[in-house]
Amino acid sequence: MDALQRRILTEGRNLGNGILKVDSFLNHQVDPVLLDECGRELAARLAGAGATKVLTAEISGIAPALTTARHLGIPLVFARKSKPITMPDQVFLTLAPSHTRGGTVELIVSPEYLSQHERILIIDDFLASGQTILGLARLAAAAGATVVGIGAIIEKTFEGGRAVLAALHVPIESLAVIVDMSEGRIVFSEP
Amino acid sequence: MDALQRRILTEGRNLGNGILKVDSFLNHQVDPVLLDECGRELAARLAGAGATKVLTAEISGIAPALTTARHLGIPLVFARKSKPITMPDQVFLTLAPSHTRGGTVELIVSPEYLSQHERILIIDDFLASGQTILGLARLAAAAGATVVGIGAIIEKTFEGGRAVLAALHVPIESLAVIVDMSEGRIVFSEP
Repeated sequence: MDALQRRILTEGRNLGNGILKVDSFLNHQVDPVLLDECGRELAARLAGAGATKVLTAEISGIAPALTTARHLGIPLVFARKSKPITMPDQVFLTLAPSHTRGGTVELIVSPEYLSQHERILIIDDFLASGQTILGLARLAAAAGATVVGIGAIIEKTFEGGRAVLAALHVPIESLAVIVDMSEGRIVFSEP
Repeated sequence: MDALQRRILTEGRNLGNGILKVDSFLNHQVDPVLLDECGRELAARLAGAGATKVLTAEISGIAPALTTARHLGIPLVFARKSKPITMPDQVFLTLAPSHTRGGTVELIVSPEYLSQHERILIIDDFLASGQTILGLARLAAAAGATVVGIGAIIEKTFEGGRAVLAALHVPIESLAVIVDMSEGRIVFSEP
């Protein structure tokens, strides 16, 4: 994903403490063409997992999850962080620490859309500490569903998420892999 | 949009008080194929407005805004309901009453991605009371940008939003127009 790396280098800002601001094309403003390319690439890399549904977390996971799901031809479910009135009383709920907001957030999925027959592909914007993705995996497990793969747009290897997720024994793909953000740098892994 | 009307009739649930639950394809689970068709149709109907940017509100606006923006070949910005740490201190912020959650929510956009040269197309999942869309229009006005069109997936005419938005003097398009939800009904307008 050269196009993605170029956008990160030209528009991304290293705010320190491992925070990468990519609000110009991913987290506040969204470039639909780039996101569609990202979805196509994640779908291609993870097609072999045989997923029946994409699972992500609102808010910034929705765009990459939607484009990936479209290229795989399967639905997506986005876990809510608060329970809307349209959701039944009995839900799957887990807590995940929030890297960019502090504290913990709730991740909530209705049992209506997550069942034991599903093969779940988890997609998110960032793979950093892995805690949000691990939370989504707990929701899938609570439903008796099977996690079959994980995909992220941007991975920050120095936060250790890949090791945390290794216990799931599924393929993990990320499109831009950043290995160092110390002292204002944004360093990608060698291809 | 016959496909959309069929999905609403087969999967939508009238929860009373004007609340339409469409969590199976729009507000919690998302059907990417249907949403892509909706985006294509909104883009076609509103192409003449000459928009340079799509503006929506997180959370459920993101999917229809993304597919509409992709078919128009322009970026989208989703207003945040809380200010992430990546956003500058000075922002555009307005309050909008929340129909499905009660109380009011903040709608926040960074001045980095909304400027006086922009021609703004507002896209949302629902056009009901029109208050969220009106809030987005206030954000555009605060930036000195020009609202040039409004599009929604589902309109509930009995909540009066179209009249509220008439003061903006822009084209308003919605793909499924519901005129009556009293006594458990879901009645579409005649084509």
